[in-house]
Amino acid sequence: MARNDERRSALADAGIRVLAEEGARGLTHRAVDAAASTPRGTASNYFPTRDDLVSALVDRIGERLTPDPEVVLSGGAQSPDRELFAAYLRDIVRRLSADPHVSLALFELRLESARRPAVAKALGAWRQRAFQEDVAFNDGSGLPGGRTEIALFHYAIDGLMLDHLTVPLDTGLSVDAAIDEFVDRILQ
Amino acid sequence: MARNDERRSALADAGIRVLAEEGARGLTHRAVDAAASTPRGTASNYFPTRDDLVSALVDRIGERLTPDPEVVLSGGAQSPDRELFAAYLRDIVRRLSADPHVSLALFELRLESARRPAVAKALGAWRQRAFQEDVAFNDGSGLPGGRTEIALFHYAIDGLMLDHLTVPLDTGLSVDAAIDEFVDRILQ
Repeated sequence: MARNDERRSALADAGIRVLAEEGARGLTHRAVDAAASTPRGTASNYFPTRDDLVSALVDRIGERLTPDPEVVLSGGAQSPDRELFAAYLRDIVRRLSADPHVSLALFELRLESARRPAVAKALGAWRQRAFQEDVAFNDGSGLPGGRTEIALFHYAIDGLMLDHLTVPLDTGLSVDAAIDEFVDRILQ
Repeated sequence: MARNDERRSALADAGIRVLAEEGARGLTHRAVDAAASTPRGTASNYFPTRDDLVSALVDRIGERLTPDPEVVLSGGAQSPDRELFAAYLRDIVRRLSADPHVSLALFELRLESARRPAVAKALGAWRQRAFQEDVAFNDGSGLPGGRTEIALFHYAIDGLMLDHLTVPLDTGLSVDAAIDEFVDRILQ
């Protein structure tokens, strides 16, 4: 069972690489087997349909984007102010930047969700849950920013990451400086 | 010559449709001919390489995103305040929303620019020019917001449009309300 879980994760990681490097149309069971160096048919065994494969990728992206428990825990000892919130955001963006395949794969799936209802369903449910959790986390921890502010940060950070991971505009702002500007302005 | 220009635009529009509906990997000369209902070989005649085709799409996307002169002119008679700036942004987003193929095609090309240097070059130059023009426009017209604010709006509106055109989060904010919130907060 443990070995099966490992194989599942390895296949999903290979799928994330394929998505990031080839785009959504490149995501086939065969391409996943090739990227994972597994015998042909392995990916189909684990994820019989392409929708199953996409669902597994959404789950795995969620796992890989889960915050580092140490960062969350160390945050718990500090006062829940805008400085701490800015530190959280910088941590999120640092993780997204350190693992660009995950972010690029997620952007690919978001575009594919405009074309495929099954992708829309898997991805929409996951994103909505993550959004609700973010709102609840700020609420529960006393961090500044409610539902509206969290929504604005979601849009802002998405746009910033898309820029950062593709062809960045020369705006004179570093990524961290852009985050600080957003925190200063969105949290009034 | 005029007829050639028309044909060029029609082929580029077909390419934009293909990008939006099939994704970047679906963008081939053959797919463009099929979408434009032109004889096979026509797209290759106009745009010999895929890079030529992508350059033409970037140009055409730029044309289709150019603001309505009437909106710009009618703005010129008003005082250049944050209200007018918010009206401009709402006009941009309204145009992007009314023509979702163009926005989706642009997002596809941005993701492809992470994989293909030629796409990165064409798209990067165009986006940087548009950014500089936005900064110069605000400067020249006395509208509020300098280089930093324009950068933040670029990120914010990109993220908002990506959300709006794919699987929108339920955040309790309409698109126009999100724009107003961003204007209120970014323009301090």
